[in-house]
Amino acid sequence: MAAKKNKLRVFALGGLGEIGKNMTVLEYGNDLIVIDCGVAFPQDEMLGVDLVIPDFSYLIQNHHKIRGLFLTHAHEDHIGSVPYLLRELSVRIFGTRLTLGLVANKLKEHGLSSQAEMTCINPGEAVNVGCFGVEFIRVTHSVADSVAIAVETPVGTVIHSGDFKVDFTPIQGEPMDLQRFAVLGDRGVRLFLCESTNVLFKGYTMSERNVGRVFEQIFEESTNQRIMVAMFSSNIDRIQQVLNSAVRHKRKTLFMGRSMVNAVRTATELGYLDIPKGQVIDVNEARNYTPQQLCIVTTGSQGEQMAALSRMASSDHRQIVVTPSDKIVISASPIPGNEKMISRVINDLLKLGAEVIYEGMMEVHVSGHAKEEELKLMHALIRPQYLMPVHGEFRHLKHHKDLAVSMGMPKEDVFLMDIGQVLEITGKEAKINGIVPSGQLLVDGLGVGDVGNVVLRDRKHLSEDGLIIAAVGVSLHDGACQIISGPEIISRGFVYVRENDDLMQGARSIVSETLFEVEQKNTSDMQYIKNRIRDDLKEFIWQRTKRNPMIFPILLEV
Amino acid sequence: MAAKKNKLRVFALGGLGEIGKNMTVLEYGNDLIVIDCGVAFPQDEMLGVDLVIPDFSYLIQNHHKIRGLFLTHAHEDHIGSVPYLLRELSVRIFGTRLTLGLVANKLKEHGLSSQAEMTCINPGEAVNVGCFGVEFIRVTHSVADSVAIAVETPVGTVIHSGDFKVDFTPIQGEPMDLQRFAVLGDRGVRLFLCESTNVLFKGYTMSERNVGRVFEQIFEESTNQRIMVAMFSSNIDRIQQVLNSAVRHKRKTLFMGRSMVNAVRTATELGYLDIPKGQVIDVNEARNYTPQQLCIVTTGSQGEQMAALSRMASSDHRQIVVTPSDKIVISASPIPGNEKMISRVINDLLKLGAEVIYEGMMEVHVSGHAKEEELKLMHALIRPQYLMPVHGEFRHLKHHKDLAVSMGMPKEDVFLMDIGQVLEITGKEAKINGIVPSGQLLVDGLGVGDVGNVVLRDRKHLSEDGLIIAAVGVSLHDGACQIISGPEIISRGFVYVRENDDLMQGARSIVSETLFEVEQKNTSDMQYIKNRIRDDLKEFIWQRTKRNPMIFPILLEV
Repeated sequence: MAAKKNKLRVFALGGLGEIGKNMTVLEYGNDLIVIDCGVAFPQDEMLGVDLVIPDFSYLIQNHHKIRGLFLTHAHEDHIGSVPYLLRELSVRIFGTRLTLGLVANKLKEHGLSSQAEMTCINPGEAVNVGCFGVEFIRVTHSVADSVAIAVETPVGTVIHSGDFKVDFTPIQGEPMDLQRFAVLGDRGVRLFLCESTNVLFKGYTMSERNVGRVFEQIFEESTNQRIMVAMFSSNIDRIQQVLNSAVRHKRKTLFMGRSMVNAVRTATELGYLDIPKGQVIDVNEARNYTPQQLCIVTTGSQGEQMAALSRMASSDHRQIVVTPSDKIVISASPIPGNEKMISRVINDLLKLGAEVIYEGMMEVHVSGHAKEEELKLMHALIRPQYLMPVHGEFRHLKHHKDLAVSMGMPKEDVFLMDIGQVLEITGKEAKINGIVPSGQLLVDGLGVGDVGNVVLRDRKHLSEDGLIIAAVGVSLHDGACQIISGPEIISRGFVYVRENDDLMQGARSIVSETLFEVEQKNTSDMQYIKNRIRDDLKEFIWQRTKRNPMIFPILLEV
Repeated sequence: MAAKKNKLRVFALGGLGEIGKNMTVLEYGNDLIVIDCGVAFPQDEMLGVDLVIPDFSYLIQNHHKIRGLFLTHAHEDHIGSVPYLLRELSVRIFGTRLTLGLVANKLKEHGLSSQAEMTCINPGEAVNVGCFGVEFIRVTHSVADSVAIAVETPVGTVIHSGDFKVDFTPIQGEPMDLQRFAVLGDRGVRLFLCESTNVLFKGYTMSERNVGRVFEQIFEESTNQRIMVAMFSSNIDRIQQVLNSAVRHKRKTLFMGRSMVNAVRTATELGYLDIPKGQVIDVNEARNYTPQQLCIVTTGSQGEQMAALSRMASSDHRQIVVTPSDKIVISASPIPGNEKMISRVINDLLKLGAEVIYEGMMEVHVSGHAKEEELKLMHALIRPQYLMPVHGEFRHLKHHKDLAVSMGMPKEDVFLMDIGQVLEITGKEAKINGIVPSGQLLVDGLGVGDVGNVVLRDRKHLSEDGLIIAAVGVSLHDGACQIISGPEIISRGFVYVRENDDLMQGARSIVSETLFEVEQKNTSDMQYIKNRIRDDLKEFIWQRTKRNPMIFPILLEV
């Protein structure tokens, strides 16, 4: 413990292979702060899993040290795990106004409103907690009120970029506070944790304002159509731009999808959306207007099966019917893995006769993340002593390192870390030293962490080959096993079979034969008998079908 | 039947939503020809399915009419179902030399070599079968010896483009025979079936030769590294280009992956690859060379789990160990849906210290499909009366229609068809009229078609929530049910539970209670008792976990 006294320890928890995306921890002596508390989305092999949250065990063990949770912005991968953390620990939460507003919505849904102590900090303000001075610095991103976080520690300044792009002409509020990064850089920054999402792209990300111009063009060209725009509900600035075009072109606006309606309500209450009176109508009023008088803003830009747009595409939405008089704009990029779902929605909308505009056709979306040149700008302003690239797969982190080195940073000052690995910084040096419990917990239904590798392996097996149940009632006389009832054979997810199919009859015969052999052996070892049934049936099925269903021998002793 | 006499019927079978990709049929009176016989790859929801093949039932019903199967090129989505068709029917097969060579490999693997009657046709040649004159026209594509097919029918000429790009400088053989398309167009083409894969991309696809130049640059820059190139084994011309660079830079070549080794053998035997003597070594000889003297050509460019490159990336390959002295080129684009698998392989290779070059970093891949301007060129040369866009999702077909209309084609002469829909062409007109049995069969293990929607639905359910088996031995006395043994509760893929967990004990209690209630009712209706157990257990589990496992009540009567 004494050894840790004059060392700053920096590490990431959670994040499903993308370090620092969901949660970062700074610890010095008896003080610890947490930056962000997000969810990851399950990977393909995590069958049936709803969400992935960080493993909080290090925080639980060190509860007494935690001085606060600081949130950079209101995206799910940065705030989504707050309810799960609050169930375990009571932690003071710091964030900007909109971020806390959207967190409050989330806590309400989880019935946790009363348990949160939330403190609003404006960009440009700072707060002291334990030995840390924590300052919020305004950045621009695809959700309003995003910040980077600068932490004054006993060993110097640490800056965490959060998610950002350099937008010189944001829709509302002031531009990114580049001056402040420069001033801190001039004074000396020990460590920069910088996001790497778009590091593989050359050049600059365009301003959000560009999308507004394209929307305006679409509204001008679409005088005979109903306009529908699908986007993320957290992109308040983009919602504002659609609203502006709708107002200019005398169309009423209709918001569809639960998260969209909630986000718009919160943003309006907090003053982040400027909506003229009477501009927004609800779905029941829509019938009083012609298609040309309407603009619908909806969720579902990622093709999510249950979102409003997907239900409209599959003619499964109770209130909105898509027709050839619709022009539908998908104002988003596919998150990797969602490409096929989005294609399906686009195809279905086109089959209904609608016109669909999506990425690649017009510039109806810009990213919220910095590309190469913006990252270089930040490095040039901050000129940190050490760099820890965060937010990205290994190839992104590696490329970010190469970029920093190309700007003159010594290779050995860039740390490509694994989740849970600890970077230790003293007054003199920085080095990777030790690991903390990290990893992730899978959330499925009400359960947190009770779905693990064994369960997932079974689900994968079941999903590929299905199952066969072989149930037999046996009696044990004088230590020998005798069939009383069955064998009954049941299969699911295996192949399409009828009760009397050749294959099922064969399976019954195999089990009977096995049991007959076992009877001869005078054994009452139930586990042995079950294993024999499993092995023989498995072999029979494999020979006949080259498939490998999960086999359940059930012996009921009567 | 008489009515069909003077009508040409054109329709597609198979193809998983992408019309005309796997199989197209032309039928006139008592004559029928089939163009291509490919597989589709299972979609995400087709859990455990290996391959998807066309439903052949129309061909089986009309076996006596089939005059031949004509193959455009040797890609899996055009030839992969040949073995499955030959198991059902004996059909004469026509193709170019390389195509037939690669089909022969495939038939050998399936033990069907003796059953195929194969006839080689060179590009530029024609053959008469029934009332049809079938001509092969050379096109350029990402596998050598690809052709389009022109069919002289009693109602005029039909052209099927196959897969193509317009490459004026192909690696071997002659360029695409644009003159022939123009001559046929000048004489009059009734119907053009044209591929639509890249119709959403503006401009032209670059020549394959461009990739060769980039390879040459990589070889020049990598004097201290071992070079490895991952690509599709069917891209013989690209293999030739890697070989050329390897020869120039005095590196021996090593082929890894079963399909790569087979394709290279066949292409060499047939004269499609020109390999200097002593250039190719096998893996055991590799140890006699330094990394700088080696160039490995391997499968796995799509991140396929079992392919050579993926096994190298996960340090799971018996013979090749990836080190920091490797430069690995992934010479392919991700097929939609494979993005994440490829990313994983790239990250793993980078973690092993290798340098990895992939799409977006250098031009190490060009598509094999025509973009907008090339499609326009073909339309301009052929000027067909009718157009049926094929190969693509609905959005591609729709865009292809818009492109044709923008070039002056009347809207009503473009047919956006569904798989199985029949286009009828007479001397005077064309119209969609009727459907044939179409769709697809799922191949899983040795089974063809025995995995259907019910099985897939069960697999999906099992994959998301797992299962619970509740087994009880009962006796029926005087028509009433009595518990003799159990209930035994088994779960898999549900949540991680131990035998004596609260949840499992609760489940046992619920089943016992249900059976006790049933005993009071004096019923011996086994189905009723099973349903009661299923419903009560389901409700209990849902209340406790908000999960919905598949429940199997098993009653053994003793």
